[in-house]
Amino acid sequence: MPQSAELDRLRVVLVATRNPLNLGAAARAMSNFGALHLRLVNPFELAYHEARSAVGPAARILAAAEVFSTLADAVSDCGLVIGTTAIQHRELQHPLRRLDEGGAVIRQQMASVPVAVVFGSEKTGLSNDHLTHCHWLMHIPTRDDHLSMNLGQAVAVTLYEITRESKQLTGSEQPAPATSVELERLTTVLLEALDVSGYATPVTRAATEEKARRLVRRMNLNARDAEVFLGMLRQVLWKLHQPQVDTEA
Amino acid sequence: MPQSAELDRLRVVLVATRNPLNLGAAARAMSNFGALHLRLVNPFELAYHEARSAVGPAARILAAAEVFSTLADAVSDCGLVIGTTAIQHRELQHPLRRLDEGGAVIRQQMASVPVAVVFGSEKTGLSNDHLTHCHWLMHIPTRDDHLSMNLGQAVAVTLYEITRESKQLTGSEQPAPATSVELERLTTVLLEALDVSGYATPVTRAATEEKARRLVRRMNLNARDAEVFLGMLRQVLWKLHQPQVDTEA
Repeated sequence: MPQSAELDRLRVVLVATRNPLNLGAAARAMSNFGALHLRLVNPFELAYHEARSAVGPAARILAAAEVFSTLADAVSDCGLVIGTTAIQHRELQHPLRRLDEGGAVIRQQMASVPVAVVFGSEKTGLSNDHLTHCHWLMHIPTRDDHLSMNLGQAVAVTLYEITRESKQLTGSEQPAPATSVELERLTTVLLEALDVSGYATPVTRAATEEKARRLVRRMNLNARDAEVFLGMLRQVLWKLHQPQVDTEA
Repeated sequence: MPQSAELDRLRVVLVATRNPLNLGAAARAMSNFGALHLRLVNPFELAYHEARSAVGPAARILAAAEVFSTLADAVSDCGLVIGTTAIQHRELQHPLRRLDEGGAVIRQQMASVPVAVVFGSEKTGLSNDHLTHCHWLMHIPTRDDHLSMNLGQAVAVTLYEITRESKQLTGSEQPAPATSVELERLTTVLLEALDVSGYATPVTRAATEEKARRLVRRMNLNARDAEVFLGMLRQVLWKLHQPQVDTEA
């Protein structure tokens, strides 16, 4: 997932974050998902300094973070401001969207304007005053009896959803499936092994053939696996054909 | 999002987790998303004990966590085992699904069988041996230049996707997939046939074992097919064990 022009318009805004570990975790999630613009509103001094001294993938994002004293300043250039909330505990006066719905809207808007996604402090979330700066609110659906998520995890899940690619991503790493010819070759060798071993009797022969053919088809083998499996069965078959002591004699 | 019968079939498996904070974070994410069954494979002693002494929403999940010494034991009752990976660093021999595709399959399978989602250690991820116990692999799409996510965040994002509400659940016509125990039994018999037939030599034995285990996992067998296939292989094996004329004598 390369850094896109769209993602370059996304700002992650953390308000009054207290815990340096959370600050670092949020930055790391941003780095993972390619959201590079972090804005901090009144971070606790200690948290901010400790987090900035950290190394690792989040360091560059923290070093480049902009610090503001009010949320209004932090989102002043944004055409869309979304507050995140655990909802259950407050009377909402704002439209509320579930993350998956909200994420789609955010992706759309990022095509043209800077978008801010705002996360409140670990203790108190966003205040009513903060909420007045938001166009609408968004929540991550979780089990009802849990009010809040860990901040770093909430940022990670939110960015995962926002950076979700709407189209299917090819997936060209998948090896090609085995062809019918290859599967039939496999079936033939398997069947011969079943004949020689006595699994198939004259009475069950037809049913066994059908069983084997279906089984091989349902294995859903790719071309490489089919070749490996064929090699195994051929060796087994060769061994089965070695002359045996006639134990019934 | 209430605890559902489906989610009750989900097991989050953490292998060799080192950091107690990560263990706690993973458990907290599980609690948030209503996935309550945690299994630990060889957790670092210290991490396990520190994490267990924590309080908060994750405490109940950690207290009820089951500890295993091998991944095979931890997933023995699971009909589907998925390994999570940062992919870029290893040649994949397993089908790889992006989280959104994989999540849909997992939701479907959870309707009928226990499903395990396996996370490797923070340092090394899952080993090749661990991967041989997985049916397929799943990765969270992130920026290319980042190999791994924070463990707690990876668990959170994965569970968010798996618990995503989907309309197309149904799909209960699918026969139940074979359990890991059944697949392991199959692997053992196949391997013995490969030994007796000379496919596996002392030199190639270890590689063959890995090859066979992966192949059987990738066949994606349902319980009925696994039984049929096992019956076939057992008969072939029986025949292979019949005394043979020593042609080299």
